[in-house]
Amino acid sequence: MWAVRALRRTPVDILLIDRSNHHTFQPLLYQVATAGLAAPSIAAPLRHVLRRQRNVTVLLGSVTGIDTDARRVIADQTPYSYDYLFVATGATHAYFGHDDWQRDAPGLKTLGDALAMRARILMAFERAEAASDSTERVEWLTFVIVGGGATGVELAGTLAEIARHTLKGEFRRISPSDARILLVEAGPRVLPSFVETLSRYAEHALQRLGVTVRTGRAITQVSPRGVSMEAERIAARTVLWAAGVEASPLARHLGADVDRSGRVKVCPDLSIEGHPEVFVAGDLAHVRAASGVVPGLAPAAKQMGAHVARSLRARLRGAPTTAFRYRDYGQLATVGRRAAVVQLGPLRLTGAIAWWFWLTAHIFFLIGFRNRLVVLIDWASAYWTYRRGARIIVNSPPSSSAR
Amino acid sequence: MWAVRALRRTPVDILLIDRSNHHTFQPLLYQVATAGLAAPSIAAPLRHVLRRQRNVTVLLGSVTGIDTDARRVIADQTPYSYDYLFVATGATHAYFGHDDWQRDAPGLKTLGDALAMRARILMAFERAEAASDSTERVEWLTFVIVGGGATGVELAGTLAEIARHTLKGEFRRISPSDARILLVEAGPRVLPSFVETLSRYAEHALQRLGVTVRTGRAITQVSPRGVSMEAERIAARTVLWAAGVEASPLARHLGADVDRSGRVKVCPDLSIEGHPEVFVAGDLAHVRAASGVVPGLAPAAKQMGAHVARSLRARLRGAPTTAFRYRDYGQLATVGRRAAVVQLGPLRLTGAIAWWFWLTAHIFFLIGFRNRLVVLIDWASAYWTYRRGARIIVNSPPSSSAR
Repeated sequence: MWAVRALRRTPVDILLIDRSNHHTFQPLLYQVATAGLAAPSIAAPLRHVLRRQRNVTVLLGSVTGIDTDARRVIADQTPYSYDYLFVATGATHAYFGHDDWQRDAPGLKTLGDALAMRARILMAFERAEAASDSTERVEWLTFVIVGGGATGVELAGTLAEIARHTLKGEFRRISPSDARILLVEAGPRVLPSFVETLSRYAEHALQRLGVTVRTGRAITQVSPRGVSMEAERIAARTVLWAAGVEASPLARHLGADVDRSGRVKVCPDLSIEGHPEVFVAGDLAHVRAASGVVPGLAPAAKQMGAHVARSLRARLRGAPTTAFRYRDYGQLATVGRRAAVVQLGPLRLTGAIAWWFWLTAHIFFLIGFRNRLVVLIDWASAYWTYRRGARIIVNSPPSSSAR
Repeated sequence: MWAVRALRRTPVDILLIDRSNHHTFQPLLYQVATAGLAAPSIAAPLRHVLRRQRNVTVLLGSVTGIDTDARRVIADQTPYSYDYLFVATGATHAYFGHDDWQRDAPGLKTLGDALAMRARILMAFERAEAASDSTERVEWLTFVIVGGGATGVELAGTLAEIARHTLKGEFRRISPSDARILLVEAGPRVLPSFVETLSRYAEHALQRLGVTVRTGRAITQVSPRGVSMEAERIAARTVLWAAGVEASPLARHLGADVDRSGRVKVCPDLSIEGHPEVFVAGDLAHVRAASGVVPGLAPAAKQMGAHVARSLRARLRGAPTTAFRYRDYGQLATVGRRAAVVQLGPLRLTGAIAWWFWLTAHIFFLIGFRNRLVVLIDWASAYWTYRRGARIIVNSPPSSSAR
């Protein structure tokens, strides 16, 4: 989307093919999954966002093949020829070769995922209330979150607040605050991309909320009844997956080198080796910068999108392209109310001030005036009342299996 | 819900079993279906609404059987015994013996229905844009709404506004305003429950919006490619069903007399013949009032709920029960912006004043402060910009068949 917008005054015909009709503001997906926000609040219809840009045609479609020699893309059985191609199909969570775990440990990458996860979380408390024996009840009240990155930390912290505050007094047979929430991370600390002091703060903040943090433990088995890790089995009916990165399978159609996660190794100008007319960016691209590989974050993707537009304009002029330079604006993650971490260059913030910073930044970057206002109201209401406005189950998952 | 709330100070133990976790504000379902509102905006979690009422246990479950002799209800294979039973499982749309039409002409009774209908409507424009030949394009741009009651009129009017205003300029190959919207009603006029002058106004208002109204035509066939009626076939890929009423199948388990729609014929105090401990109310009940059969409207259902609580309290005291008396507060329906009809006793309003009345009444009756505020913002934004905030397709239906 950022590349397309940057090309609004360039004399090109753009065909934007996406399999969903909206742009999703990914950093707030966990809020939809935990019933804090309605799905439309973090989504903007692509057509609407780009309606005034007359050089763009938006097409809802699934790209299934790319032929870089014939310069052709196949979407829904229809071939589309191109002069220049830009692929930004992103990445999804990875199960490290255990794709069968997906059914019992769903991940969070799309709004569909978020709504399914929301139904699963809310249903767990309903099933605990209806459970006839105490073993079953305990299993429904045990939640395991796999992966200690920002998404895992945010899910665990919010779940703890839901169990202790939002649902307080609403059940008659269970006490939602008895819920056990475990965050499992294979590496030595949570938020591994942050500096160590911030990881330590986040871990303590999670523990204060009642979350059990297990680091240095890899999951070895996932089933409908729980997870196994080295020397421990946890009986849990709800397992949420927030680990690993796997590039979109379209990467394989490009014929370029890929890294371990399947991301395409790109040239400095973000085109691919041997095909100066093909660009790859965002989570799908493996880009080397001075400080290492560019991280898979929204700000990096936006910068890359704008750079692809620059490279493309240079090609059209016959001028040399320039190398992409990543500007690191830092990282934010939130644990719970008035508890967040901010790492901005040499600046490190924790606690309430970091939380207010996080909130302001996220509202600011949310697309569309209406969404910002509605999200502000939802958050203000949630802040004062601990209520969560989107607590509805529309399609309930059949028992513990995924839809 | 209204019966349960009316019993808050009565010394009884209430078990409320519902197969959804929320109360849906049905009069605004069409707004969710037409992408004007997010699903959570018109839903309130039952547990949350009733959290302070200590004599209630809310259970998410599907009732599959009722044994009035053994005084037992079966929900999810578990039997629950009762002293008093209140059944208010409502009604759904009816296909007059053609249940196979449901796949191609989905109805609108739940939030799940509304989200599926939203995806279908938005996908139709997407498929028209992607269509390779003009016949297919015209079929995707033709919408048939079956049933000229309030829901049908509201869907047709809103669809016309979406085609002519909301989507304006967002497509490159089609012009959404070319969409053809037909409202088909088997009876002689739309809004048959209103007086004739208001029906006439609504029909003219729909025509001004570009809707084709066909009255006195019964549908004889529905297929993925269109509908047939007497002496006419309409090729359309989107057919929406807003006709007929059929009572919940649980009515049959009660052993009482039912009417043609399957609604239970109840005694004046809303209990059923031979079972003074069993009450039926809402859309499931066939109730005779001085002015005829009580209509299946939300205000009537709320009054009945409160009356069941009164009858139950009389039974507990050993006092005689009283007959239900329906207070008709009138009817409202909206056609489009600044076009609605209001019938309130001798009062009849049309146009802008009726529309403002409709808007105020609906905001007022929406449950929960937050929802009211968010709905107000959504509507104010839609009023000024014609934008619709919930224009996202989360689970797209596979081609033209229903999910």
